[in-house]
Amino acid sequence: MEMGSATHEKAGLFARGWWWIKLLPEKLRTKVCEIASNTKQLGKDDPRRVIHSLKVGLALTLVSLFYYYQPLYNNFGVSAMWAIMTVVVVFEFTVGATLGKGVNRGLATLLAGALGVGAHHLASLSGHIGEPILLGLFVFLQAATSTFIRFFPKIKARYDYGLLIFILTFSLVSVSGFRDEEILELAHRRLSTIIIGGSACVIISILVCPVWAGADLHNLIALNMEKLANFLEGFGGAYFNTSEDEENKDDKAFLQGFKSVLNSKTTEESLANFARWEPGHGRFQFRHPWMQYLKVGTLTRQCAYRIEALHSRLVADIQVPPEVGQKIQEACTIMSMECGKALKELASAVRAMTKPSSADSHIAKSKAAAKSLRSSLQSGLWEDIDLLQVIPAVTVASLLLDVVNCTEKIVESVHELASLAHFESVSQEESQSRSDCQHVVVTVTESSPLPPVTPENGNPSGSVTDRRNIQV
Amino acid sequence: MEMGSATHEKAGLFARGWWWIKLLPEKLRTKVCEIASNTKQLGKDDPRRVIHSLKVGLALTLVSLFYYYQPLYNNFGVSAMWAIMTVVVVFEFTVGATLGKGVNRGLATLLAGALGVGAHHLASLSGHIGEPILLGLFVFLQAATSTFIRFFPKIKARYDYGLLIFILTFSLVSVSGFRDEEILELAHRRLSTIIIGGSACVIISILVCPVWAGADLHNLIALNMEKLANFLEGFGGAYFNTSEDEENKDDKAFLQGFKSVLNSKTTEESLANFARWEPGHGRFQFRHPWMQYLKVGTLTRQCAYRIEALHSRLVADIQVPPEVGQKIQEACTIMSMECGKALKELASAVRAMTKPSSADSHIAKSKAAAKSLRSSLQSGLWEDIDLLQVIPAVTVASLLLDVVNCTEKIVESVHELASLAHFESVSQEESQSRSDCQHVVVTVTESSPLPPVTPENGNPSGSVTDRRNIQV
Repeated sequence: MEMGSATHEKAGLFARGWWWIKLLPEKLRTKVCEIASNTKQLGKDDPRRVIHSLKVGLALTLVSLFYYYQPLYNNFGVSAMWAIMTVVVVFEFTVGATLGKGVNRGLATLLAGALGVGAHHLASLSGHIGEPILLGLFVFLQAATSTFIRFFPKIKARYDYGLLIFILTFSLVSVSGFRDEEILELAHRRLSTIIIGGSACVIISILVCPVWAGADLHNLIALNMEKLANFLEGFGGAYFNTSEDEENKDDKAFLQGFKSVLNSKTTEESLANFARWEPGHGRFQFRHPWMQYLKVGTLTRQCAYRIEALHSRLVADIQVPPEVGQKIQEACTIMSMECGKALKELASAVRAMTKPSSADSHIAKSKAAAKSLRSSLQSGLWEDIDLLQVIPAVTVASLLLDVVNCTEKIVESVHELASLAHFESVSQEESQSRSDCQHVVVTVTESSPLPPVTPENGNPSGSVTDRRNIQV
Repeated sequence: MEMGSATHEKAGLFARGWWWIKLLPEKLRTKVCEIASNTKQLGKDDPRRVIHSLKVGLALTLVSLFYYYQPLYNNFGVSAMWAIMTVVVVFEFTVGATLGKGVNRGLATLLAGALGVGAHHLASLSGHIGEPILLGLFVFLQAATSTFIRFFPKIKARYDYGLLIFILTFSLVSVSGFRDEEILELAHRRLSTIIIGGSACVIISILVCPVWAGADLHNLIALNMEKLANFLEGFGGAYFNTSEDEENKDDKAFLQGFKSVLNSKTTEESLANFARWEPGHGRFQFRHPWMQYLKVGTLTRQCAYRIEALHSRLVADIQVPPEVGQKIQEACTIMSMECGKALKELASAVRAMTKPSSADSHIAKSKAAAKSLRSSLQSGLWEDIDLLQVIPAVTVASLLLDVVNCTEKIVESVHELASLAHFESVSQEESQSRSDCQHVVVTVTESSPLPPVTPENGNPSGSVTDRRNIQV
C-alpha cells in the first residue's frame, strides 16, 4: 500500500515536472512580454529616463577617450580610470544631484588629499617602524570621526557623499604614501582626473536636455495641490450621489489621486536639497526660496490627512438619509467645491509663477457656506430626526470645516511663497484667462518638451468634474 | 546734510563692524558649545552610532595592513587600494545593508569583469582602428541599458548598487584592456581585493555589536503601535478634561508622539529591504516574513491618519459643553482606551514574539462601547440640545469609530504575522504577566545592551496615563 502510494507520488511528481517543462516556453514568453511592456511603460511615463540613460552612455564614452587617444593617455596614464569612476558615480538624474555630488567629490578630494599628504609627511618623520603605526592611527581616527559626523541630519542631507569621499581619499593618499614616493603626484593626478570626470557630468547634464530638481519640486507642489483639488471638487457629487454614475464611487480615479500626496515628504525633501545646488535656470533664480516649497508641501500633506478621513467616509457605504442629506448638501458641496477651486487657483498660480488673486475669494465663499451650514444646524429643523442618522453627515461637515481651515493655511503659505519668490502680480481677469489656458502656458514656458512630473494616479491636469452640483 | 548722513552711516557701519568683531569670540563659543551638545545628544540617542564609527575605523585600519605588511603587499601591490575603497563604500550601519552592498558589489564585479574581458577580446579581433570604436560602442550600449534598468522600482530597491558597480567594472575592464595586456590579471586582482574588503566589512559588522535591520524593523513596528496606543490611552482624559492638569493639553508629549508614524513609510521600506539580505539571527529565521511587517506598518499608518484628525479636534480649542460631554464621555473614553490597550497588547506581543491573546477582547470591549454610544445617541435625551453644540463631540465619536475599525484591521494583520512567523502562543494570564514586566523582558532578550529604536518623540515605553478615567 505504502509502496503504491510512493510510486504514485513519484509518477505525480514526474507528471508535474513534465507539465512544468512543457509550460516553460509559454511562461517565458509571457514573462518577456511583461518585461517588455513594463519597460515601454517606464519610458512612456517619463521619457526623460531614456534620455538620461543615453546621457550617461555619452559621458562615459567621452571620458574613455582618455584611454584611446594617445596624447591624452600620455598625460594621465592609468589615472584616467578615476575619470571613468567619477562619471559612473556622480552622474545623477537631476542637475542638482549631479552638481551636488560633483562638488562634494571635488572638494572632499582636494581637502582629504592635502590632509593625507600632511599625515604622510608627519608619519614619515617617525622612522620606519613608527610610520605604519602612526599612519594606521591617523586612518582610524579620521574614519571614525568622519563616519560619526555623517550621522548629523543636516550634514547627511547635503554633504554625506563628500564625507564618504573624504574618508576614501584620505585613506588612499596617506596609506599609498607608505609605498609610493611620488605621493604629491598621485594626489594631483587623482584630483585632476576627478575634476575632468565631474565636469564632463555637470556639463552634459546641464547642456543636454537638463532635468532640474527645482523645476520638478515646483511642479510636484503644484501637482499635489491639484490632486487635492480634484478630490474636493468631486467629493460633493460623489458623497451625496448627485453625479450620474452612482456605481462604485471609490473606483473613480480622481478620488484616489490624493493618496500619493500622503507619502510625498521624502521626495519633496530630497528634491529641495538637490535644488539648492542648482544655478539659476529658466524662471528660477539662484536663491529661489526652495525651503518655502517644503512648507507649502507640509501644509498640503496636513490637508491630505483630513481628506483621507473624508475619503474613508466616502467608502464606508453609509447611506445618508435623503432628508438629512438635502439639509446640508448645498453648504457641504459649496465648501468642498470652493476649497477645490482655491487649491486649483493656487496650483495654476504656482505653475504660472503669478500671485494667486482669486484664491482668497474662494476661501471667503467656502467660509460663508460654513457659516450658513452652522446656522442651518442651529435652526430647529432637526428635531424630528434621529441623531444617529445625522452622525455620518455631520461628521463629514465637520471634517470639511477642518479642510477649509487647512486650505486657508495653504493659501497663506502660497502668498508667502509668491512674495519671497517675487511672483508677478496679475489682475483677476488676466489670471482667470491664464488659468483657463493653463495647459498652453505650461507647454510654452517649459524649457524642454518633456512632461513636468509624472502624475502617478488620476488625471491631475484634465479635471472633468461635474460642475452642476454647485448650482443645485 | 547728505554728507553728514553718509558720514553718520559710515560711523554706524564701523560701530556695527566693531560690535560684530567684539561679539565674535562669544558667538564662536556658543556655536562650539551647541555643536558639542548636539554631538553628545546624537551619541546618547543611539550609542550604536559611536560603535559603528569605531567599527568603520577598525575595518579600514585592518585592510590597510595590505600596504604595510610586505608579504601581503607582494601579492596584491597597488590593487590593495580596491580593498580600501570597498570598505569605505560598503560598510553601512546595519548588517543587512552592508551584506546587500557587499553581495551586489562582488557579484556585479564578477559578472561585469567576465563580460568586460569578453568585450575586450571581441573588440581586439577587429584591428587597431576598429578596436576603440567597437569598445566605445560597447561601453555606450552597456551604460545606457544598465542606467535605464536602474529605473525599475523593484530593481532600484534591491540591486541599484550592483548595477552601478556593473557599469563601473565593465567600463574599467574593457577600456583598460586597450592599454593593459594583462587584462585577465587586472580583472582577477580587482575581484579578489573587492572580495577581501567586502568580507572584512561583513565579518566585522556581524561579529562586533551587530546592528540588524530586521530587529530594527521589528522594534520600529512595535514602537509605532505603542505611540498610537499612548495617544489613544491619553485622549479621553485630555479631550474631556478629566485629567488633573488641564493647562496646555497639546503640549503633552504622549499626544505628539504619533506624529512620527505618519512619515515612517520610507524608513520601514528600506529596513525591510535590508532585512531580506540578513541571515537568521537571534529570534529571527532567515525567511522571516518581513513583508508582513510592512503590511502591519501600512495599517498602523492608516490608523495614524485618523488619529491626526482626532488630534486636530483636540487642539481646536472647542469646549465641549458639559451636558453634551457627559453623555458620550464614558463610551468615547472606553473606546479610545480599549483601542489603546489592544495596540499596547499587540506591541508587546510583537516585541516578545508571542501570539497576541487579549487584543481581541479589548476590541470586543471597544465595540461594545461603540454600540452603547450608538444607542445613547439614538435615545431621546438629545432633544433639548442645540445640534451645533453637539457637532464637535459627535465628530470625535465618529472618528473614534473609525479608529476602532482601523485597530481591528491592525489586530488581524498582527495575527497573520504571528502565524507566518510562528510566534509562540501563551495563555492569557501568562501574556498578562509578560506584558506587565515587558521592560524587563525586552532588556533580557535583546542580544546587545543597546536601546532598540530611538524614540523620537514622547516616551513610548513608560506610559504614564491616568487610568482612573475608565472607572468614571
